[in-house]
Parts: sequence; C-alpha cells; structure tokens
Amino acid sequence: GMPLAIVAGPCVIEDEDTTRRIAERLKDLAARLQMPLIFKASFDKANRTSIHSYRGPGLEKGLRLLETIRTQCELPVLSDVHEIAQVVPAAQVLDVLQIPAFLCRQTDFLLAVARTGKPVNIKKGQFLAPWDIANIVDKIASAGNRRILLTERGAMFGYNNLVVDFRSIPIMQQQTGMPVIFDATHSVQLPGGAGSSSGGQREHAPVLARAAVAAGADAVFMEVHPDPDKALCDGPNSLPLDTLEPFWRQLQAIRRILHDGDD
Amino acid sequence: GMPLAIVAGPCVIEDEDTTRRIAERLKDLAARLQMPLIFKASFDKANRTSIHSYRGPGLEKGLRLLETIRTQCELPVLSDVHEIAQVVPAAQVLDVLQIPAFLCRQTDFLLAVARTGKPVNIKKGQFLAPWDIANIVDKIASAGNRRILLTERGAMFGYNNLVVDFRSIPIMQQQTGMPVIFDATHSVQLPGGAGSSSGGQREHAPVLARAAVAAGADAVFMEVHPDPDKALCDGPNSLPLDTLEPFWRQLQAIRRILHDGDD
Amino acid sequence: GMPLAIVAGPCVIEDEDTTRRIAERLKDLAARLQMPLIFKASFDKANRTSIHSYRGPGLEKGLRLLETIRTQCELPVLSDVHEIAQVVPAAQVLDVLQIPAFLCRQTDFLLAVARTGKPVNIKKGQFLAPWDIANIVDKIASAGNRRILLTERGAMFGYNNLVVDFRSIPIMQQQTGMPVIFDATHSVQLPGGAGSSSGGQREHAPVLARAAVAAGADAVFMEVHPDPDKALCDGPNSLPLDTLEPFWRQLQAIRRILHDGDD
Amino acid sequence: GMPLAIVAGPCVIEDEDTTRRIAERLKDLAARLQMPLIFKASFDKANRTSIHSYRGPGLEKGLRLLETIRTQCELPVLSDVHEIAQVVPAAQVLDVLQIPAFLCRQTDFLLAVARTGKPVNIKKGQFLAPWDIANIVDKIASAGNRRILLTERGAMFGYNNLVVDFRSIPIMQQQTGMPVIFDATHSVQLPGGAGSSSGGQREHAPVLARAAVAAGADAVFMEVHPDPDKALCDGPNSLPLDTLEPFWRQLQAIRRILHDGDD
Repeated sequence: GMPLAIVAGPCVIEDEDTTRRIAERLKDLAARLQMPLIFKASFDKANRTSIHSYRGPGLEKGLRLLETIRTQCELPVLSDVHEIAQVVPAAQVLDVLQIPAFLCRQTDFLLAVARTGKPVNIKKGQFLAPWDIANIVDKIASAGNRRILLTERGAMFGYNNLVVDFRSIPIMQQQTGMPVIFDATHSVQLPGGAGSSSGGQREHAPVLARAAVAAGADAVFMEVHPDPDKALCDGPNSLPLDTLEPFWRQLQAIRRILHDGDD
Repeated sequence: GMPLAIVAGPCVIEDEDTTRRIAERLKDLAARLQMPLIFKASFDKANRTSIHSYRGPGLEKGLRLLETIRTQCELPVLSDVHEIAQVVPAAQVLDVLQIPAFLCRQTDFLLAVARTGKPVNIKKGQFLAPWDIANIVDKIASAGNRRILLTERGAMFGYNNLVVDFRSIPIMQQQTGMPVIFDATHSVQLPGGAGSSSGGQREHAPVLARAAVAAGADAVFMEVHPDPDKALCDGPNSLPLDTLEPFWRQLQAIRRILHDGDD
Repeated sequence: GMPLAIVAGPCVIEDEDTTRRIAERLKDLAARLQMPLIFKASFDKANRTSIHSYRGPGLEKGLRLLETIRTQCELPVLSDVHEIAQVVPAAQVLDVLQIPAFLCRQTDFLLAVARTGKPVNIKKGQFLAPWDIANIVDKIASAGNRRILLTERGAMFGYNNLVVDFRSIPIMQQQTGMPVIFDATHSVQLPGGAGSSSGGQREHAPVLARAAVAAGADAVFMEVHPDPDKALCDGPNSLPLDTLEPFWRQLQAIRRILHDGDD
Repeated sequence: GMPLAIVAGPCVIEDEDTTRRIAERLKDLAARLQMPLIFKASFDKANRTSIHSYRGPGLEKGLRLLETIRTQCELPVLSDVHEIAQVVPAAQVLDVLQIPAFLCRQTDFLLAVARTGKPVNIKKGQFLAPWDIANIVDKIASAGNRRILLTERGAMFGYNNLVVDFRSIPIMQQQTGMPVIFDATHSVQLPGGAGSSSGGQREHAPVLARAAVAAGADAVFMEVHPDPDKALCDGPNSLPLDTLEPFWRQLQAIRRILHDGDD
C-alpha cells in the first residue's frame, strides 16, 4: 500500500523567513514520520471575498520564493494558478500546478495548464457532484497529460456552509483512477460567513481529515501557520504547526489499517 | 476508552427462524471481537414510502419475538416505536426504545417514551442541524430521563439524497454529553429515489462507517441480512452477514487509534 | 378559471375573543374581494422546538372554539391533527383535516385521517421532493378518499433554512391532479434558527406568495395576527391583519392574469 | 414604475443568418409590447461541461457579428467575457459586459471589466448567498464603475440541480440598490445532469419567470431559439421563438400589478 501523503503550507506566502521556517518544520516532521510531503503556498489569492484583503507577493516574487523552498529545503512545491498568462512561468518552478475550485470548468485554462505536462491538481468545485469530475479529467487528458490529482474540498450546503460528502472519495477514485487528496482546512470554511471574509472552524479540520483517510483518501491537504490567529489569510481554518505531530500520526495509523500495515 | 459498540440486525423482523439466525451470528462475532452488541429489528415499518410495502409482524408478535431473542440469545434488544399507544408494551420488552427520525419533534410522543425510564435512542431528523438536537434532549430530560443515545443518519441534500456531515458527531457529543451512534445503512439511502421505495448504496456503508468512527462516533448501527437482495425491507442498503468480520475489525482498530489502545 | 382561495388564521388558538375577532376580519375581507376563505387555527402545537413553548388550548376546548367559528361566523375551518386518537373527534368539527409536514410519511395516521372521508390537506414534508408526494396521495386514495389538497411549505436548504422550489407547484398539480396551496408564512421560517424557537422573515411572505400565485398555486395559506409581535406562536412570520387587503388584491390580480380574467 | 426589461437571444452565436433572424424577431416583439430589450449571445462558451461541445465562433468573429446586430438592428448587445485579454476588445462593441457566474469571485477580472466604464452584469455564482453579492458590487465600484446589474440564476441544491430562492431578488435589490435580472433559462438547468452536457427543463422557465417578476425582478433573461431541439448549446432549456408573445405579455401584466399600472 502507498503511504499517506501530506500537502501542507501557509495559505498565502507572507515573508521569506516565515515561509521558510514553516517549510523546515514540515519537512522535519514528514521525514521523522516517513510521510511524503508536498509544500504548498499561494503567491496570489485571486478570489478573496473582499477587495480589501491581503493577496500575497504576486507571481514573480512568489515563484522566486517557492523556487528557494524547492531547492534549499529540497521539497516539491505546489501552488495555484489563476489565469493563462501565469501558467508557463509557474510551470518552470512548480512541481504541481493547482486548478482553483472556482476555475475548474474553464476549458482554455485547463488546457493551458495540462499542456505544461506538469502534474495537475484539480480542486473539485463546490458546485460539482463527484461524478462531474470525470469530464474535467477528460479535458486535461485530451491534452495528453494524465498526471492528475483530484482534491475534495466540500460542496455547497445551503448558504455560507460547506459539507463534505465522503462518498465522493471512492467515487472519484473509481471513476477516474486518480488519487484523491482531502483538503481538510478549506472544507471547514464558512464561505462568506464572516461578512467581508470567510469564517472557519479550525477545530473540525482534524475530525474531517481522520474521516477522509478512513474513507480512503490518498493524501491530506492542510493550511498551517506558526500562529494562525495572526495569519494574513484563512487564519480561522489554519492549523497551528506545533499540533501537527500527533495529528499526522493518527492519520498515518488509520491509513495503515485500511492497507494492512503493508506500507 | 470505551470500546466501539455495534447496533445491528435486520431492518424488519421477517420470520422467527431468519431473525434468530441473524442474532446468533451477530452475537458470535461480537463475542469474538469483544465488542458490545445491541440487537435491533423493527416490528412495524410505519412510514414506508409506498402503501404496498411489507411492514412487519406488528407490535404483539414482533415484541414476542424480540423477547425470545433477548432471553434466549442473551442480547439487549432495541426497536423503534411510532405512537404513544405502543410505548408501554414496548418498554416491557425492549432495552432501548428508539425515536424514529421523522418523529423526533413530536413532544407528547417524546415525553411518553422518556417516562418509561428506559434508555432512549433519538434518531436526528434529516431536517435538523446538529445543534438542534439539544432541544430534543431537553424534552426527554424534562421527564427525568437522562439515559439518552443520539443517532446521526444524514441530512437532506437536495432531492432524494442524504449527506452525512461528520462535524455533527463532535458537535452533538459536546453539546449534550451523550454518546453518538452512526447509522451506516440509512445514511446511504436515496430516499424516495427508487420510485415507490427508497434506493440505497450498500457499497458506501463501510466507507461512511469507518469515517464516522474516525470522527469519534461511539457506536455504529447497521442493517444486516443473510441475503440482502431478498430482504423484505431496505435490501439495497443492508450488509451481507458474511462480510461483517473484517469490517468490524477495521472499525475497532480505528477506534483504538483515537483512544490510544486503552480499551 | 377558479378564483384564488385563501386559508388563513392565527398559528394557534389563543383566547376566544382574539380568535373570533380574527375570523370576522378575515371573513369581511374575503367577502369584499369575493375570495373563497378557509379559517385555520391549531388547537395544539405538538412539535414546538422547545418544551417550554405555548402549545394551545388542547383538543377539546380548541375544537369547541373552532365549532363556534364555524357556525357563528359561517366559515369552513381547517386544523391539524397529530395522532390517531385525535382524528375522529376532529373530523366531527372540521371541514378540512391537515396532515403536519413531519407526519406526512406515517402510514397508519394517514389512513386514519383518510377514512374520515373529510377533505385532507397534506403538507409536503421539508424532506421530500415534489414527486414524492404521489406516494402519499396514493396512501390517502387507497382508503377511498380523493378529496385531497397539497401544501408546499419549502424544502430544507442547508441548516436552519428553507427554500421554496416553485417548480414543485406545477409538478405536484400535474402528477396528482390535486390543487396546491402555498404556505407563505411557514416557508419563510428559519427552523430552529432562533435557539429555542424558530425564527422567521415576515417581510418575505408576500414576496413568495406573489411568486407562488404567478407559478400557478391554487390557494395561499398565511398565518395572521392583529399584533404579530405579541403572538404566542410563530409571531416572527405572522402577517398583521391590517396589511392584508392590498396584499390579497395583488394575489388575486396575478391569478387573473394566469386565467385570462375568466373568474 | 419602470417597465419590465427583457434580455434575450440564442445561447451561443451560431451563424450570421440565424442570429440576425432571431434579433429581428425579438426586436419586433419588444417594440410591439413596448418592452426595453437587450440582445444577448455568447461568442465563446468557455466552460462547457465537455471538451467535445460546440463553443462558438470565437472573440473576433463573434464581436464582428454582434456589432452588426447592434448597428443594423439598432439593439443594445450584451455578451459574456471570460478572461482579461477579452475585456478591452469586447468593451469596444458591447453595451453591457457580463461576468459569468463561475468567475464572479476573480478579483482582477472583475476590476478589468469594471475599468472599461461599461455597464456590468454580474451573474451571481451558484455557490453564493444573496448577501454575498455586496462584496462583488464593492469590487466593481472600487474601480469607479457603478453601472451594475445583478443576475439571479439559481443556487446549488444537492447534486446536479439548482433551486431559485426568490427571497434573493428583494435582498439583492435592497442591499445594493442595483436592478436584478432573473435568468429564467439557466435557472432550470440540471448542471451536469445529462452526462457530458447539462440537462434542462424548458417547461419550467415560464413558471419561474412569472414567479420572478411577481417577486419584483426588474428584467428577465431568456435563451431563445427558432428550433431549440437543434440549438448548438443549451437546447434543453431554450424557449422557442414563436411562443414568446403570450409569455412576455403575462410577465408585463404581472409587472404592472406590482407597479400600479403606472408604466
């Protein structure tokens, strides 16, 4: 059985020092637990709820910093792209290009990302059924790229609330043959629920992450921060760095039960 | 840590022989795995989708058979009641009285059940939020009965579909202090989705049950049958008896991870 | 074309004087506008959110008062029943027996109501799709009673919120051939949303009522009160008596557009 | 009171002849009924469900044809843009630029559209609450553009289904002061519900359009086609041209009831 993988990092790149410190801490922990790790941070939050929110350092400066993390910390890096013009420069640095949930139906954008040949992580839109992902996978594959990851991040449930339907994990795996990541921190967002920013319920992220691994998820994504209450983005649903070890151990142990300890 | 408990049995009492055979099989397995077991079967399905569906042997004959299971198999028995007139006779036989989800807001009925002093299992209505259960617990407690179990069985998600919001398990535990059972087989129903009966997705029941235990559920409820395709009720979401052992072992192992192996 | 009918009254019977005063006011208005009117009030609110809420005068006293309204005001009266034992006494007084939404799947109860031969108003459960009502109509019809009204009162939409899907009005009419009432005041409830009682959004009731008539509803139900903020039940979604005339005139005018002014 | 406006046209530009014929027919009807009309057609369907679907003539050819409609038929034209590079050329031709629902949270894109100074029609995302639109209006207004229209096109309701919450019309009007268009044909889509394309329920479009006008909508949007079953896009929810007259008359009559016949 494949070991459980982790995708983790701060929601948005803040400054070099903070970003690096987070990467080092994650790397140490993953090495100790022998869990594959991908580092994730956004260089630009292009769809913040409010025009007044912090957006990040931008494409150029952000990619430069991710390049540093990649080479100096020797970690694969993942980030999200938001328009066609970003795709080629991003592909020169990133190990995995991520399609944001809101953009998962934009055909030209999907094709531009696919054509880089890099692994693509498709976040399933909050407005899609699990079986709707197959058409999106087909779009990527039509450009000759079959290195695809799928991310479950919840579905709209009434207003300003998301619910995770864990049936989606086996459904997406079986329909597409691709690995499924569970996004533990965006799934506990309350989108728009805090007026001019999205609220969140950090305390539920470990609960849902454990449930996802028990339901067969291949990897867990989480936003982490040394001090979530001071994070510049998604603080309410980010996990404090110093709580990760027992949490990751639990996830790993649940994974082993599903795969008979053969990892 | 408390061990994970199981509530299991056929959806509806069919004949004495089948019912007994199921009880014996469940008892053997639970004993072998040292899991607490409650036997469950309905004597009357009072809210079938269609007027033409099989409803069960009725109150008197059904209770007599449950009494037999209780004394001869030495198993605690749970069944659901549907109107005030059934409550007193049912309480003379049953170890736990169950409030059906559709009836969880009927005050007089709740009070009648509460006044028996017997443990009460409240199935959370498909139309309730997790925090809405506190008012129902208050109604039971107002009659001096605090032996209460809560059951999560999914919430309406659009038409003819349910979704399980696993945040509900810790929310209900924390708000009420009561143990939470996860109903693995009704949660995968497609209510009304098969025309004149409810459809189901049996294959998802173990997935969701594992997720529930990982999310902290105290017990798992499941409908089982020696031959689900021939079951007179809820066949599409019942689990075959001969697949239970590896499934229960997985659930138990996940439970131990959450509770540090101290059971 | 049939004229638009109105079903109206206080949520719960308060005292004789208030109840009568409401009935007289409604009767005068309906007569002036030549709209058919059924008076509605509950004698017992059997499923209040909290155990501490006012429930009404009870079966005997409530039916006596409804009898007074019926004979002295010469208005047909409708009320809801909640258990089999209430059905026969209620049928001796009421012109229409109403099945509460939560109870619309309880087969024995439906049959008991059906067997009175009285017109039955089925409130569609918040957990049902429009096409699910056909099985319920079949249950009533199986007892030889085809005097059936259907009421749309919204469907669960996430937690503590309802949404009205107006496609349901033509769907239910076409599938069953029965008239459809739109419940304008319960549809704007926020169930459980106010802690130990349900919240409401009175200002949206006229909006949704107009939409319902435009979508083809045959009648509109509304809770009314001389002073909604002092109402003992459902105040937040009750309409003040003195605002009804322009509202009813609008509904009537919309109805005439759909039916070519031939009423 | 302002008269009810209509936004109508084929889903996608097919050929010049068909497009022009549709525009002429719509113009004649609108003139006869004295209803303000905006012609709408897409030059590129950038987010079709499947990679194999027809997308339209593309930006350059499509804008040239819309320019023809604009000058020769003397109709204002509206179309949707999908990426920043399209915004400036589109603004040189179009009278109104439309933000697609999936893109309504992309800040840079919103700002680029806003900066053209042209009227902007924001389609409310299927994943947004009505009150979430205020943050989007703020983004547009932050660029000094307050010529904003809002479009209601339904919210996700479970999987592969939308529901229209008509409370959204007054909520968006009151919160933003902007006019609200109701999109009658996309609201009856069953997104993804037909496998590799979206299904639709054309028969419900007039029902929901009447409801929307009764709820206070300022304009109605509809996709029309001379022969919907042969349409290259959204056929299942397009309305046949020759059924429009009685439908538009009904909408206009309902509008007059709300505004006292003063238009």
